[in-house]
Amino acid sequence: MNKSATPVPWLYDIDYEDANWVITSSFMIFTMQTGFGMLESGCVSIKNEVNIMMKNVVDIVLGGLTYWMFGYALSFGQSDLNNGFIALGDFFIDPSLSDPKKGAKYTAFIFQLSFATTATTIVSGAMAEKCNFKAYCIFSFLNTAIYCIPAGWVWGEHGFLNKLGAVDIAGSGAVHLIGGSAAFASAVMLGPRLGRYDNGIGPLPLGNPVNAVMGLFVLWWGWLAFNSGSTYGLSGAKWEYAARAAVMTMISTFGGGTVSILFTMIKLKGKIDTIDIINGILGSLVSITAGCFLFCGWEALLVGIIGALLVCCSMPLFDMAGIDDPVGASSVHGIGGIWGVIAVGIFADNPYPLDTTSGRTGLIKGGGWYLLGVQTLTAVCLLIWGLLTTFLLLWFINLFVTIRMDLHMELMGADITEHLVKHGNVNIVGVSRAVSAFRPVFDTNDIDELNTAGMNPEHHKHLDRVKNLASKKRYRLSKILRDITANRKFGINVAKRLIPKKRGRDKQIGRQIAATMTATVAHADQGSKAHLAWIT
Amino acid sequence: MNKSATPVPWLYDIDYEDANWVITSSFMIFTMQTGFGMLESGCVSIKNEVNIMMKNVVDIVLGGLTYWMFGYALSFGQSDLNNGFIALGDFFIDPSLSDPKKGAKYTAFIFQLSFATTATTIVSGAMAEKCNFKAYCIFSFLNTAIYCIPAGWVWGEHGFLNKLGAVDIAGSGAVHLIGGSAAFASAVMLGPRLGRYDNGIGPLPLGNPVNAVMGLFVLWWGWLAFNSGSTYGLSGAKWEYAARAAVMTMISTFGGGTVSILFTMIKLKGKIDTIDIINGILGSLVSITAGCFLFCGWEALLVGIIGALLVCCSMPLFDMAGIDDPVGASSVHGIGGIWGVIAVGIFADNPYPLDTTSGRTGLIKGGGWYLLGVQTLTAVCLLIWGLLTTFLLLWFINLFVTIRMDLHMELMGADITEHLVKHGNVNIVGVSRAVSAFRPVFDTNDIDELNTAGMNPEHHKHLDRVKNLASKKRYRLSKILRDITANRKFGINVAKRLIPKKRGRDKQIGRQIAATMTATVAHADQGSKAHLAWIT
Amino acid sequence: MNKSATPVPWLYDIDYEDANWVITSSFMIFTMQTGFGMLESGCVSIKNEVNIMMKNVVDIVLGGLTYWMFGYALSFGQSDLNNGFIALGDFFIDPSLSDPKKGAKYTAFIFQLSFATTATTIVSGAMAEKCNFKAYCIFSFLNTAIYCIPAGWVWGEHGFLNKLGAVDIAGSGAVHLIGGSAAFASAVMLGPRLGRYDNGIGPLPLGNPVNAVMGLFVLWWGWLAFNSGSTYGLSGAKWEYAARAAVMTMISTFGGGTVSILFTMIKLKGKIDTIDIINGILGSLVSITAGCFLFCGWEALLVGIIGALLVCCSMPLFDMAGIDDPVGASSVHGIGGIWGVIAVGIFADNPYPLDTTSGRTGLIKGGGWYLLGVQTLTAVCLLIWGLLTTFLLLWFINLFVTIRMDLHMELMGADITEHLVKHGNVNIVGVSRAVSAFRPVFDTNDIDELNTAGMNPEHHKHLDRVKNLASKKRYRLSKILRDITANRKFGINVAKRLIPKKRGRDKQIGRQIAATMTATVAHADQGSKAHLAWIT
Repeated sequence: MNKSATPVPWLYDIDYEDANWVITSSFMIFTMQTGFGMLESGCVSIKNEVNIMMKNVVDIVLGGLTYWMFGYALSFGQSDLNNGFIALGDFFIDPSLSDPKKGAKYTAFIFQLSFATTATTIVSGAMAEKCNFKAYCIFSFLNTAIYCIPAGWVWGEHGFLNKLGAVDIAGSGAVHLIGGSAAFASAVMLGPRLGRYDNGIGPLPLGNPVNAVMGLFVLWWGWLAFNSGSTYGLSGAKWEYAARAAVMTMISTFGGGTVSILFTMIKLKGKIDTIDIINGILGSLVSITAGCFLFCGWEALLVGIIGALLVCCSMPLFDMAGIDDPVGASSVHGIGGIWGVIAVGIFADNPYPLDTTSGRTGLIKGGGWYLLGVQTLTAVCLLIWGLLTTFLLLWFINLFVTIRMDLHMELMGADITEHLVKHGNVNIVGVSRAVSAFRPVFDTNDIDELNTAGMNPEHHKHLDRVKNLASKKRYRLSKILRDITANRKFGINVAKRLIPKKRGRDKQIGRQIAATMTATVAHADQGSKAHLAWIT
Repeated sequence: MNKSATPVPWLYDIDYEDANWVITSSFMIFTMQTGFGMLESGCVSIKNEVNIMMKNVVDIVLGGLTYWMFGYALSFGQSDLNNGFIALGDFFIDPSLSDPKKGAKYTAFIFQLSFATTATTIVSGAMAEKCNFKAYCIFSFLNTAIYCIPAGWVWGEHGFLNKLGAVDIAGSGAVHLIGGSAAFASAVMLGPRLGRYDNGIGPLPLGNPVNAVMGLFVLWWGWLAFNSGSTYGLSGAKWEYAARAAVMTMISTFGGGTVSILFTMIKLKGKIDTIDIINGILGSLVSITAGCFLFCGWEALLVGIIGALLVCCSMPLFDMAGIDDPVGASSVHGIGGIWGVIAVGIFADNPYPLDTTSGRTGLIKGGGWYLLGVQTLTAVCLLIWGLLTTFLLLWFINLFVTIRMDLHMELMGADITEHLVKHGNVNIVGVSRAVSAFRPVFDTNDIDELNTAGMNPEHHKHLDRVKNLASKKRYRLSKILRDITANRKFGINVAKRLIPKKRGRDKQIGRQIAATMTATVAHADQGSKAHLAWIT
Repeated sequence: MNKSATPVPWLYDIDYEDANWVITSSFMIFTMQTGFGMLESGCVSIKNEVNIMMKNVVDIVLGGLTYWMFGYALSFGQSDLNNGFIALGDFFIDPSLSDPKKGAKYTAFIFQLSFATTATTIVSGAMAEKCNFKAYCIFSFLNTAIYCIPAGWVWGEHGFLNKLGAVDIAGSGAVHLIGGSAAFASAVMLGPRLGRYDNGIGPLPLGNPVNAVMGLFVLWWGWLAFNSGSTYGLSGAKWEYAARAAVMTMISTFGGGTVSILFTMIKLKGKIDTIDIINGILGSLVSITAGCFLFCGWEALLVGIIGALLVCCSMPLFDMAGIDDPVGASSVHGIGGIWGVIAVGIFADNPYPLDTTSGRTGLIKGGGWYLLGVQTLTAVCLLIWGLLTTFLLLWFINLFVTIRMDLHMELMGADITEHLVKHGNVNIVGVSRAVSAFRPVFDTNDIDELNTAGMNPEHHKHLDRVKNLASKKRYRLSKILRDITANRKFGINVAKRLIPKKRGRDKQIGRQIAATMTATVAHADQGSKAHLAWIT
């Protein structure tokens, strides 16, 4: 409450009560990364599910590193060199302990970082199953700049769109439209997955639909913090609009979800397609993001309905144009983002006493065409920037590392070729077929020798020993006792439990097995005999 | 802290510091939906796991929509028509920006919405694997009324139970008992799953126990916000009781968890059954919910122990009565809820200065029989309401859409029949057997043509091309070069990487493969040739 | 803000605004249990994935119970018996309603409880796939003491290390080093998994890498609350350091993640190993924990880089020494924890006005060798305590219950032997092989009779009935009608939907099938006929 008397940038104009809200929100926003990871890994073929999770990890690690290095600086840095297009201060932001604004700066950074990692990870879905992992690492490292410069246009005090009065509260434009247009550009640059449209534009089966829906849930709740946290505090009247943002975000998804259910039921004659529902709801979330606390309930519902419909209808259109975006990020974040930015121009209230809209209102609220014009300009600028810079960046990376996954990797799946993960059902998943097709040409020894995920390969050998012995009659009791003794008390305990309580021959064989196992323990415990002696 | 001088309903008597707590809690409560989804999808057969996730999505979308439309109005609406039984104001609640209580209203709505979606989703588990999806959508749409009217009895200022002094802090009764009795009624109405009791009442195997336990974890932590957030703020002494609620919630689960472990170990002679532990812990959570900050540690422990035991013992009793509740929601939420409501009458402290209990205390705290009587009345009213209205609602829906899943759908699983999801191991899961049994009768073409989840069907054809070519000697180098040239630099890069570095015949075949793949790229890239030219 | 004028222990020196932060943080910290569960179950063989989830449940239930019973008392209890080594008050902590500090006490307990459950669960990973479940329950019950006594040394007002000026903000030492050294000791005590090193020290395949990465994500975001919440409030300057803690935690992982990616790429010649990345990032999180708000950006980056490298390099070293820690907890929490504690002595700022470091600074900040000396002493004390007490505790438990899983259980997997969970792909997972090897010796009837997880066994019989009937021509229409009539309207509805609309013979057979199913319904609904009559 003890606000500084001297003017400070809005980003640093917070007290500790605002900071509570902002930091808590940012922690919840980070959970959206879990959501994107589960959604994307649930949508792709099983043979690529680990690869896409690793790409999400790389997004945070390298995307976060560059956000600290130069991303924050390009969006919000304070410097005399700042101009309407770019900020150029505070690289490697690291306020000293004597800086009276250090708390506000750390808070601003962690909040903006949570937005930045979300923005950069949107693209990963569009590149799933076809982008080379190393090329993706480079992309992830540099992609930060693609997001941060236009984020400065919209949110930075220097930004030319900000000065014109553009309103994009939680980033339908700056986060989602940028992410979506980058997704579109990368889907075009990488081309469709091999054979994607050989049988028409019907969707490929999801690898793990339960994980995909779980990802939707995690994103949904994270989005509440994303939008609600964007009041950037609770003090004054901010809390009232934070609560409004949460309510309108949910109402938007009620509208978007309902039409998605109807859409898919009509399209599939009564069946319900998982990905239509997921992307319809996500589309309504993207759409409400720019004006989350500027709408009343009916408007939020309508914004969500239109957003979901635009997404559900544009997904097959992109496919008809041969643009293969495995998770539909171009539609969800791109088309949804354009509509979200423009919807502000149509419906926005003036959230007095906040100056979010600089006192302006949307077209149907009597605010005239100005805001709608600025919002449209914003959408156009962000779209062009997102497409152009992503094309350029990928073209540049392709000069050094081919961005498209090698074809044999695409066919065998990136999990086995990049991460040495051999899934359980290599037959069903199609990996064994690919390995066998390539064996005459490539050295597949590495792959042939991999153990299946989820099994313990060494156990098989020991089981064979047990099995062989179980059929042998000549195993002598003396050896059993010797073996057991060798392992002292620990071994004896094990053996006691293993010897069944039946009488006669069964018991005898049982003892033999027990002994074998004791011997097996002895063998396995070579490295830890000392401790066995020590225990007993 | 600047509370209004004029009297306002308790629901709107909050400032921004309370709002911080209430909104943050509601965001965490929404994560319980993820928990219910994972728990339920982990408990059912794999052939229904996507279906139950989609039902959870529908719960939020349609249940949330109706909560906005009329649910909140029936519980908390302000109107002259309000009477002890029902509230009838604030339909489509949407406070205007000039409303001085708008922040409090939005906050109240988002918090109550998080409760409502939780309440309606409880029923989905009891209907899993046997309820028609369309009937479920209608049920989910109308179910809101079943929850909201009695929630008003207990929590609304108009409510007759509230006026009598009923205490149900976070809803053992209003949320869980209503949900549990609705679950019971729907389990009875739908009848048992086909053949459920052919071999006794032993439980069916869980489809994915890891997901089920993960769902337990997510519910557990969400429940902390559910109970702790129900102080409805932090100001004054509320924070002290919020902290107490969190502590007692955890202690209750320590008691409930411990007896569940002992219960299952005794029942199964040393083995530990996952679902016993899960439902025992959930039972202790349900039990502590009504009086979460009214108990001391020992009492919380006891409430949890009794709750868990009641749940663990009642599950097989329901099964013996032929009532098939796939996830045990009737026991967990119904029986646990009854105990939770009554426990308040026995143990409750007077949490001065809060007026939660109107100054009353429980039986053993010297408060006499009044509170216990009111609590018992509350449990009886809620139980009868939950059973009766659910029976009526399902009977009504059944007039238009048969509520029971068609039998061939039940046998093939709802994932494949409703959502076109063909699981990887159709043999193990039993789907292929069902499809083959029904093939002579029904048109199973749609299903036969479905691709297995997790595979990329187009890749198989391309692999066959590669394989065929690998055995051909006559492939001419000139064609390779032509193919590569056709794709310019991108193709050349791909080919270079594909040609192995071995000499002689291997290398030659390798080149052929490379060429094939280049050709394959060309083929796959039909729709994106322009961009290839553009890159290079 | 109305702080008490009389001196109170730091643990209880909070107001409701601090409490908001502390309680919210503790709720988020509990989500780390979900993270550990998913990480560990994703890392082990599929045949043990449920077992390790159950161990995580037990950790909370029994670990939490004992934390209430004596854990909190040994760390933070207030008593005249307290001395530098141990606290001895507040067993079964349960402040009365008249206690003016009750809110602070509940808050302190829930926060410390979230730390305690995290600490005790670290060990479960090192015991995965080889520890007897009952022995683990006993261990989990008593393990609390191992954590709580040294936590008192570092954080309790009585603690000798605290009095010397040891700094361990969020527990690199008290939580992670104790957990890691206990993990090391238990890995040694239990010996390696059977055959673990028969083929060298290469890692075994992860059972479910997607779940493992998901666990990493959940831990990552929970860690933000873990570190940031450890300012123990927001009032005064605490919020500035809470924000700093969050920023430095993320920057540390950017450093740790980047070097982990480079490390694994160099080691595996361009491939990326999932577990290297996961444990590298976790290592950087552990390392930053002790001094999370004492470092500037560059230092946090360096602390994370060194921590990740130490973890990545020490994992194979432990394996070379024959110490088999299935998830690498010894490296991540042990080695990472040592480095984290020592890093404070090197880099720490004095976070004025907080007295975290008692005004001291680290070696390179001009603070001299004192702090580094105390930190080193802290690391040594914690390491020795963790190793010694865990050895003793396991030795003691082993007197009564053999701590090592029986060998046939190890080979068949604990899921089937302890929890009666039969995984879908028993062949791939290796369980069927083990069962067959042991069948001559043990009574495997129980196991042979288990149904596969995810299938509905009763459906198979009914499918056979349908199949038989589909080939019979003689089924009479009269019987169909009788069957349908028997079930009244419900049955008729079902039958109508089942009878296909094709003409002729197909339709006739269809009718027969429909009738069979109706009959099947009748059979299945024996227990619920009453309600059918009631509906219709």
